[in-house]
Amino acid sequence: MKRGDYDRNIANQILDQGLLGHMGFIDDDHPMVIPMVYARVGNTLYVHGASTTRLVKAQAKGVPASLTVTLLDGLVVARAAFSLSMNFRCAIVHGTARLVEDLEEKEKALAAITDHMLPGRWDESRPMLAKELKATGVLKLSMDHVSTKVRTGPPGDDAEDLDLPIWAGVVPVTSALGQPVADPHTAETTPAPASLQAARKKFA
Amino acid sequence: MKRGDYDRNIANQILDQGLLGHMGFIDDDHPMVIPMVYARVGNTLYVHGASTTRLVKAQAKGVPASLTVTLLDGLVVARAAFSLSMNFRCAIVHGTARLVEDLEEKEKALAAITDHMLPGRWDESRPMLAKELKATGVLKLSMDHVSTKVRTGPPGDDAEDLDLPIWAGVVPVTSALGQPVADPHTAETTPAPASLQAARKKFA
Repeated sequence: MKRGDYDRNIANQILDQGLLGHMGFIDDDHPMVIPMVYARVGNTLYVHGASTTRLVKAQAKGVPASLTVTLLDGLVVARAAFSLSMNFRCAIVHGTARLVEDLEEKEKALAAITDHMLPGRWDESRPMLAKELKATGVLKLSMDHVSTKVRTGPPGDDAEDLDLPIWAGVVPVTSALGQPVADPHTAETTPAPASLQAARKKFA
Repeated sequence: MKRGDYDRNIANQILDQGLLGHMGFIDDDHPMVIPMVYARVGNTLYVHGASTTRLVKAQAKGVPASLTVTLLDGLVVARAAFSLSMNFRCAIVHGTARLVEDLEEKEKALAAITDHMLPGRWDESRPMLAKELKATGVLKLSMDHVSTKVRTGPPGDDAEDLDLPIWAGVVPVTSALGQPVADPHTAETTPAPASLQAARKKFA
C-alpha cells in the first residue's frame, strides 16, 4: 500500500469515528474555527451549519476550507515535565468548500450526516419538508489533501530519567454515549429506536 | 453584568474545562486547524505545539490566530430530521499569536499548561532543563475577541410534530478520565500522584 493510501485509510477511520469536526475558514483575513457535524461520503465531506454557509454562499467557485477531527485517547504523564503529552488520533482534511444547491444531493448529504451520528435515524425521523430542505445550509468539502497525526503508547522519558521515583504512565480519556433521556412529549409506550443503540455501539 | 463580561465568564469556564483546543492559523492562504493543549492565564491563552510555532517564528508582530474549545454534551434527537442537533458549549477566541521568547514567561506558561491538564503535576515532575525549555515552542494568544455558542435542552420539534409516535430526546455524551496505567518503569512502590486524582475530578 502506498503511503498516501495508508494515510487516507487512517484518516477515513478517524473521520468515521468522530462526532464533531472543527472546520477552518478564512473570513476577512481571520482564521475561523467552528465546530460542525459532518459525514464522509467517499472522498467528500458534507457539513451542516448555518453560521458558516454565509461565508461560502457568495463564492460560486468555493473557498479554501479544512476540517479537523481529533479523537483524544489519553493523557501521557511523563516523569519529565518536558515530555508531558497526549495520545490522540487526528485527521486533517484540506479542500474547497462549496454550497450544496442541488436538492437531491442536499437530501442525501443530510441523510448521511444524520446516519453518521445515529445510524438509521434518517428513516426513523419525520421526513424533511421541501421548505426545510431549502432552509438548511449544507457545504461539501472536497478531500483534496488529507493528513493524519497519531500518538500512541507510553511516555517518552529519556533513559536517564526512568529510575526516578516519579509515577509515569497514561491516563485513558474515554468518551461514550450515556442513557438516552426521552423528552416530555414522547409517550411512554414509544420504544427507544434502534438508532440509539447503534450510536451507543458506534461511539462506545 | 454587561453582556460582554457575561460571555467572557462563560468562555473562561469552557476554556478552563476543556482538554484540547483547535487552533486556527492562516498558512499560505490556507486555513489550518490543529489540535493543541493550552492553558488560560488571565486574558492570555498559552499553547504548546512544535508544528505551529514555525508559522509564527518569523513574525515579530505576531499573526492572527484563534482557539476554539468545544465541549460536547449530547446528541439532540428530534422527531423531524430537520431538527437533529447537538448540545454543546463552545468558546471561540480570536487574537494575535506570538512566540514566547522570554524564558521565565515560557516556563510559567508550560507550568500552567501542565497544571491545566493535571493539577499539581508541574511540581511532581522532574524539573525542566534549560535546553528543554529552549527547545519547546510556546505561543501566546491574546484574547482580543471572545464569543460563545451554547445549546442546551431537549429537541426543538415544531408543535405539530409533538404527537408523532417517534422517540425524541437527548443522548448524553460523556467524557471522563479512566484508570491510570503506569508504564513498565514505574516501581510498584511508587504511589499514583495527587495530580491524577485531581485531573479525574476536574474532567469528570
